[in-house]
Amino acid sequence: MKAFLARRSGMHGPAVALCACLCLCAPAAGGGERASDPAAYKAAAESLRVSGLRSEGAFELLRMITSVGPRLTGSAQAAAAVELARQMMDDMGMANVRMEPVTVGRWDRGAPEEARIVASGLRGTIPIAVCALGGSIGTPEMGLSAPAVEVKSFEELDRLGDRVKGKIVFYNRPMDRSLADPFAAYGGAADQRVRGAAEAARLGAVAVLVRSLTLRVDDHPHTGFITYRADVPEIPAAALSTAGADLLDGLLRREPAVTVFLRMNCRRLGPAPSANVMGEIPGSDRPGEIILVGGHLDSWDLATGAHDDGAGCAASLEALRLIRESGLRPKRTIRAVFFMDEEFGGTGGRFYADAPGRKGEHHLAAIESDRGGFLPLGVAAGGADGALLGKIRGWMPLLEPLGLTTLSRGGGGVDIAPLVGRGTVPVSILLNAQTYFDVHHSALDVLSSVNPRELELLAVSVATLAYLLAQEGP
Amino acid sequence: MKAFLARRSGMHGPAVALCACLCLCAPAAGGGERASDPAAYKAAAESLRVSGLRSEGAFELLRMITSVGPRLTGSAQAAAAVELARQMMDDMGMANVRMEPVTVGRWDRGAPEEARIVASGLRGTIPIAVCALGGSIGTPEMGLSAPAVEVKSFEELDRLGDRVKGKIVFYNRPMDRSLADPFAAYGGAADQRVRGAAEAARLGAVAVLVRSLTLRVDDHPHTGFITYRADVPEIPAAALSTAGADLLDGLLRREPAVTVFLRMNCRRLGPAPSANVMGEIPGSDRPGEIILVGGHLDSWDLATGAHDDGAGCAASLEALRLIRESGLRPKRTIRAVFFMDEEFGGTGGRFYADAPGRKGEHHLAAIESDRGGFLPLGVAAGGADGALLGKIRGWMPLLEPLGLTTLSRGGGGVDIAPLVGRGTVPVSILLNAQTYFDVHHSALDVLSSVNPRELELLAVSVATLAYLLAQEGP
Repeated sequence: MKAFLARRSGMHGPAVALCACLCLCAPAAGGGERASDPAAYKAAAESLRVSGLRSEGAFELLRMITSVGPRLTGSAQAAAAVELARQMMDDMGMANVRMEPVTVGRWDRGAPEEARIVASGLRGTIPIAVCALGGSIGTPEMGLSAPAVEVKSFEELDRLGDRVKGKIVFYNRPMDRSLADPFAAYGGAADQRVRGAAEAARLGAVAVLVRSLTLRVDDHPHTGFITYRADVPEIPAAALSTAGADLLDGLLRREPAVTVFLRMNCRRLGPAPSANVMGEIPGSDRPGEIILVGGHLDSWDLATGAHDDGAGCAASLEALRLIRESGLRPKRTIRAVFFMDEEFGGTGGRFYADAPGRKGEHHLAAIESDRGGFLPLGVAAGGADGALLGKIRGWMPLLEPLGLTTLSRGGGGVDIAPLVGRGTVPVSILLNAQTYFDVHHSALDVLSSVNPRELELLAVSVATLAYLLAQEGP
Repeated sequence: MKAFLARRSGMHGPAVALCACLCLCAPAAGGGERASDPAAYKAAAESLRVSGLRSEGAFELLRMITSVGPRLTGSAQAAAAVELARQMMDDMGMANVRMEPVTVGRWDRGAPEEARIVASGLRGTIPIAVCALGGSIGTPEMGLSAPAVEVKSFEELDRLGDRVKGKIVFYNRPMDRSLADPFAAYGGAADQRVRGAAEAARLGAVAVLVRSLTLRVDDHPHTGFITYRADVPEIPAAALSTAGADLLDGLLRREPAVTVFLRMNCRRLGPAPSANVMGEIPGSDRPGEIILVGGHLDSWDLATGAHDDGAGCAASLEALRLIRESGLRPKRTIRAVFFMDEEFGGTGGRFYADAPGRKGEHHLAAIESDRGGFLPLGVAAGGADGALLGKIRGWMPLLEPLGLTTLSRGGGGVDIAPLVGRGTVPVSILLNAQTYFDVHHSALDVLSSVNPRELELLAVSVATLAYLLAQEGP
C-alpha cells in the first residue's frame, strides 16, 4: 500500500509538505488561471482527464478500502476502515487529515440465517435464501414456523386485516422493470422493506419476508435498513432472494397452506464510538469556504461494499489526488469526507454538520457519491434559485468530454442532507444505474463488480466539478 | 427454444398469418396514429419501452444465437447459425423470411498456437498467450524461432530498416488510455494489427507479434482481421496478450537478445457458400421503402461472439418483435438483416447491396448495431444534408426516456457501407464503449459478459427509431 501511495504522491515530496507544495512548487498545468479563464479551465480539465484515465488510481484506492472486508457500522472492521482511511489520506499528503467522532448504533447478524418452506404437498422442505434485514430483531432461539400469507401492497395487507394474525407476511411486489430508471423502480418497492415489519406487526403478524430489491432473479438476498414503530411490537424481518420469492409465490398459488420456518439470531447492541474521516486541499484564497466531496465508508455486512459505497469514497479521494497531481491550486478548500453510518440512517452526516470543526467554515457545495462506481452520464445540482445549474451549463464543454451530457435539477444524498438543510448546494454525478441493484446490499457487491475505467471516469468527473466549484463558487 | 418463440409470438397466432395479423387484428396501442401525431408516437414509444423492459427478450434471442458456439465465417457453426436464424425469424412470425447467398472466404485456426520467450538470462522459456490473427498464414510445421525486435510505430520500424531482417517484429503501442472514447483509442492502435505483417515483411521480418487491442492488462489475446500486400511475402501474424506484451517489453529492456518461438498451423481455405438471413414487417403503405436494422451473424472463433455481434442481431430481431407485440403498423417495411462475414471484410454487406432481391426496393435508412450490447447513450445519423438529424432532434422527447440524450452527425458500419454508398442514410445507436474492448475479439466475448437489461434498452432504442423512421421517413 505504501509503495503505491508514495509513488502517487511522489511528485510533491513528503506528505507533510503538502501545503507548501501547493503554494510554492506546483507545476503549471492549470495552476495560474484567472477567474473564468476558459483556456486555463480547458487545460485543467484536460489535465485531470489525462492523469485519471492513464491510471486506475480510484480502483487502487477501492482495492485498499475493500481489503478491510465488510464494514458494517459499529463493527471492528468499520473501525479498521476508519484507521486505514486516515492513513491513506495521510500517506497521499492530504492536509488537515483527521477523524471526527460519531456515536453509532450497532447491529449484529449473528449466525447465518435459516429458512425453509414447508408445503403440504411436499414430502420434505425447501430451503430458501434469506438474510435478516438491518436492524431486525432475531427469532426465538429455535426459530419460528408460521403460515405464509402473500401481499403486494399495504392496501392488500389492510384488506386481510385479522387474517394476518400469527402469520408470516410475505411482501412480493417486484421492482417495476418497465421503468427505465432503476432508482424509480427501487423507490416504488422499497416501502415493503422499510415499513413492512411495522405494518404487519400492527395486524399481529409474527414475522415478515420481503422480496429482495433487485431486477435480477437469482439466489442472493439483498439486505437494507428497516424501521420499527414505537407503538407496535417488533417482529423479525428478512429479505428473501427473488428466486426464493418466485418459488414461494408459485407454491402459494397452488396450495394456500404453506408454512415457512425462519431462524435468525441477529441483535441490536449498545452504541459504539466511530468516526468520520476527512482530508483536504486547502483553498489558496478562501480556505474557510468548503467544497465537500465524499461517500460513506460503512457498508453492509454481506460483502465488501465495493459499489456501496467504497466506490464513492475512492472516487472522492482520487479526485483530490488528481487535482494535486495536475498541479491545480483551488481557491477554496476541497475536502474529501468518508462518512460513517449512512446505511443505518445517516448518523455520520448529522455528526459532521454539528461538529465543533464546522465553526468558521462555510460549506458552499457538496458532491456526495453514493450510487456506485458506474459510468457517469450527467450532473444534477440543487440550490434554491437554480443559479448553479446555469453556471454548470456554461461548464458543459469541459464536462462533455467525460461523457457528462445531461444536466438536471436535483442532487443530494443522506450524508450531506443536514448540510443541504443549512444552505449547502448539493451536486451529484448522475451514473448509469442499470446494474446497480443487481449487486446493491447483497453478497455480490465486491471489487470484481466494479470496472476500473468507469470508476476512474467518476473520479475525474468529481475532480473536474469540484475544481470548477472551488474556483467559481456555486 | 420453440416454447419461448411460440409464447412470444402467440398473440398474433401462427407464424404464417403474420401479414394478415398486422393488417387485420393488430391491437390498438399505437396502430392508428396519423403522420406526426405526437400523442400517438408517445404512446407507441411507451408501449415499446414497457414491453421491452418487462422482458429480457433480446437476451433470450442472444442465448439462442450464442448456443451455436463461435460462428467464424465459412465454418460449420456459421452455417448452423444461418439455419437457426432463419428458424428463429420464421418461428417469431416475421414476413418474407429468407436467406440470400453470400460466397465467403474461409480461414481455419488449426491447433492451439504455441509461443515461448527464450531470453539469454533465463534458464528455461516463458510461455506467452498468443492467437493467430485472422487471415494469417501459419508458421512452418515445426514452428519458427527468431529474435524479437520491438517497435511502437511504422516510423520506428522504417528507421530500423535492414535490422528487421530475419526477426519477429513486436508491435507494442498500447491503446491510448487517456482518450475518453475507447473507439478513438482503438482506432489509434489498430493499424499495427491490420497492416503490421505487410509492413514488417517489406523489410524482411519473418513474423509479427502485435499487442492485443484492449485497455485491460490480462492474459487473453485478442484476434482480428489483417491485410497482406500483393507485393511483399506473407508472414505469420499473431496477437500477444497485453500481459505477455508487457513481459516481453520488460525482457527486451533488460537484454536485447530475446528470441521468440512461434508455432501456428492456421490456413486459408477455398471459398464457401453462406448466406445473409432476413425477415421483416412489411410496410402498410410503402412496402418497397425499407428501414433496415441489423448486425452480423458471424463472429470470431475464440468465443461465442455475444457482444460482437450476437448482440446486434438479437437487438435487431427483438426490435421487430417489440414493434409487432405493441401492435404497431409501420407504413414502410422494417427489415432485420443478419449479415454474414463482417469480420473478414464485409462480404455479406456487399452481396446484400448487389442481390437481385434489391430490385424495386428503396433503402431509406439503415441502423447497423455492431458495437456490443451495452447501455445506449445517444444517436448518430448521417445523410448528405443533415435533414435527418433535425428530424431526430424533434424525436428526442421520445428517445430521452430510454437514456438517448446525445445526438451527433455520423453513423454507419461495415455491413451497411455499400448501401450508404448508394444513398441510404446511416443511423447508429451510440453505446457505452468503456468495456467493449475488454472482451472484443477474445475468449471473453461470451453470454455472461452481456447485461440483459442494457441489451434490452438497445433493442427498445432500435425499435423506437426504426418505427419513427418507418412512419416519417429519414
